[in-house]
Amino acid sequence: MINILFAADPHRWGEYQIPLTKALTDRGLDCAVHLSLSPEEVDYIVYDPSGSLSDFTPYTRCRAVMSLWAGVEKILENITLSLPLTRMVDQGLTRGMVEWVVGHTLRHHLGIDRHVLGQDGVWRDTAAPLAADRSVTVLGMGALGRACAEALADLGFPVNGWNRSRKQIAGVKMHCGATGLTKALSGAQIVVSLLPLTEQTRNLIDATCIASLPKGAVLINPGRGALVDENALIEALDSGHLGHATLDVFEREPLPPEHPFWAHSKITVTPHIASASRPESASIVIAANVWRSQTGRPLLYLVDRESGY
Amino acid sequence: MINILFAADPHRWGEYQIPLTKALTDRGLDCAVHLSLSPEEVDYIVYDPSGSLSDFTPYTRCRAVMSLWAGVEKILENITLSLPLTRMVDQGLTRGMVEWVVGHTLRHHLGIDRHVLGQDGVWRDTAAPLAADRSVTVLGMGALGRACAEALADLGFPVNGWNRSRKQIAGVKMHCGATGLTKALSGAQIVVSLLPLTEQTRNLIDATCIASLPKGAVLINPGRGALVDENALIEALDSGHLGHATLDVFEREPLPPEHPFWAHSKITVTPHIASASRPESASIVIAANVWRSQTGRPLLYLVDRESGY
Repeated sequence: MINILFAADPHRWGEYQIPLTKALTDRGLDCAVHLSLSPEEVDYIVYDPSGSLSDFTPYTRCRAVMSLWAGVEKILENITLSLPLTRMVDQGLTRGMVEWVVGHTLRHHLGIDRHVLGQDGVWRDTAAPLAADRSVTVLGMGALGRACAEALADLGFPVNGWNRSRKQIAGVKMHCGATGLTKALSGAQIVVSLLPLTEQTRNLIDATCIASLPKGAVLINPGRGALVDENALIEALDSGHLGHATLDVFEREPLPPEHPFWAHSKITVTPHIASASRPESASIVIAANVWRSQTGRPLLYLVDRESGY
Repeated sequence: MINILFAADPHRWGEYQIPLTKALTDRGLDCAVHLSLSPEEVDYIVYDPSGSLSDFTPYTRCRAVMSLWAGVEKILENITLSLPLTRMVDQGLTRGMVEWVVGHTLRHHLGIDRHVLGQDGVWRDTAAPLAADRSVTVLGMGALGRACAEALADLGFPVNGWNRSRKQIAGVKMHCGATGLTKALSGAQIVVSLLPLTEQTRNLIDATCIASLPKGAVLINPGRGALVDENALIEALDSGHLGHATLDVFEREPLPPEHPFWAHSKITVTPHIASASRPESASIVIAANVWRSQTGRPLLYLVDRESGY
């Protein structure tokens, strides 16, 4: 019998109980999933930081901690956690992100806000250019960035991608490193930020980075709030250098009601809904990793402490 | 020397002069394009009804009239026109339509309006379902409907298609005929109408048709205004049976400022911008048809007077 501790937001247990049990059974694993258990009896921990578990020290038998979140920077702050940690890469989360990113990219491309906000009876029949004439840059070519870049390219947008390490992705013009970043941004009418938050990427989108974008560019950030220098962003919107920012993630969440982002006419706040792990598909990933660990195979999506994701 | 009369909105000549001349030259055709010419000297007419040509009787030598518009129902009202008529099926128009339809489908799917209109500082973090759980029905599987259905299916939406005649399209569940229409609509959370306007389709989207949609469904109409019974639409929005309508086309265009659609909180009017023929790609279609006619080949996109498109 394998003992799994579900140490996440307790509200999520209702969503996970059935699909997680099924996914484990489908893998032929004899598991019990617990909401609480003596630490020394736990084999695996399914985790997000919104539950009550904060000290990993007593979990002496545990073989892996499996994050329900794609971004693990908060989890890595926990100095008691030296166990193998996996991040969540699930098909449901990826599909949701693609839908949100493509939706907001098309919203800005087509100028949809003008129509949603401006039903004034005036017939202004200027059509948008084609996607083929609207360049988009995606920062971060992990599972999420790559899927978004590919979907945007499928719709006809010329897509530039930027990544820390060199990668090749069909249909996407790839860049890497510091000079690559300036190049990737210099012609981008729409920028989508899907980088992991690490010491290297914190405040990456600062005044210098924003200045390398063409005038009127739009920033879409469903990655992490701390990738963006908030003051530099507001200054660039106020000066007219940036056309708009659509932000789904923030340094502090929930974004406080008094935060200037809410009231800014060129910022659209969405409340960290771009995507979430979906219980059905996330459970399959967790079950796969329990099975891999039990059968001596390397874990999927194992976090590299050095790079921070 | 082949004489082509450009008998369309005179404002469009500036956009067409260079690409049309180039497309004809690329086909090896020795043509002159005129803005006015004695009718008996005209070999082909490039046409839209917003120009001044209304009587086709004197064009005795003319071999074909080539519409710049995809929808030809207005042109067919002209009883002086018995010449072969082609409608416009151009790659640029199709791509623009796909972008507009996918953009507005995702806008409704993701509930983007709530965020564009409601930046009130309240953090409501309920994510949308996945596209896989949102069924979309496309009415009309011509070049435009088919391209939109395929793009929506690519993004993960389950797509139903309805067409007058039976068709098979990979990834789309097809329906046809009257009983097929009810079936295609009965589970549709979002309906996209891209039918041609004919005597059969006028007012097709009437109270009965709307009643067969599930409660809360959204109608997106970039096809033709007269496909929809305006009063039935407003009644269904007011009763809460329909959730929203995004309309790009109207019986009378420009839509008069006093028309109730503009002020309705559940209607988004866009001013016939979903897509337009693009001079570069449309010119290639025109040149191809001149070449086909000159070399004895059948014309592309020849309008069938019987079916009306």
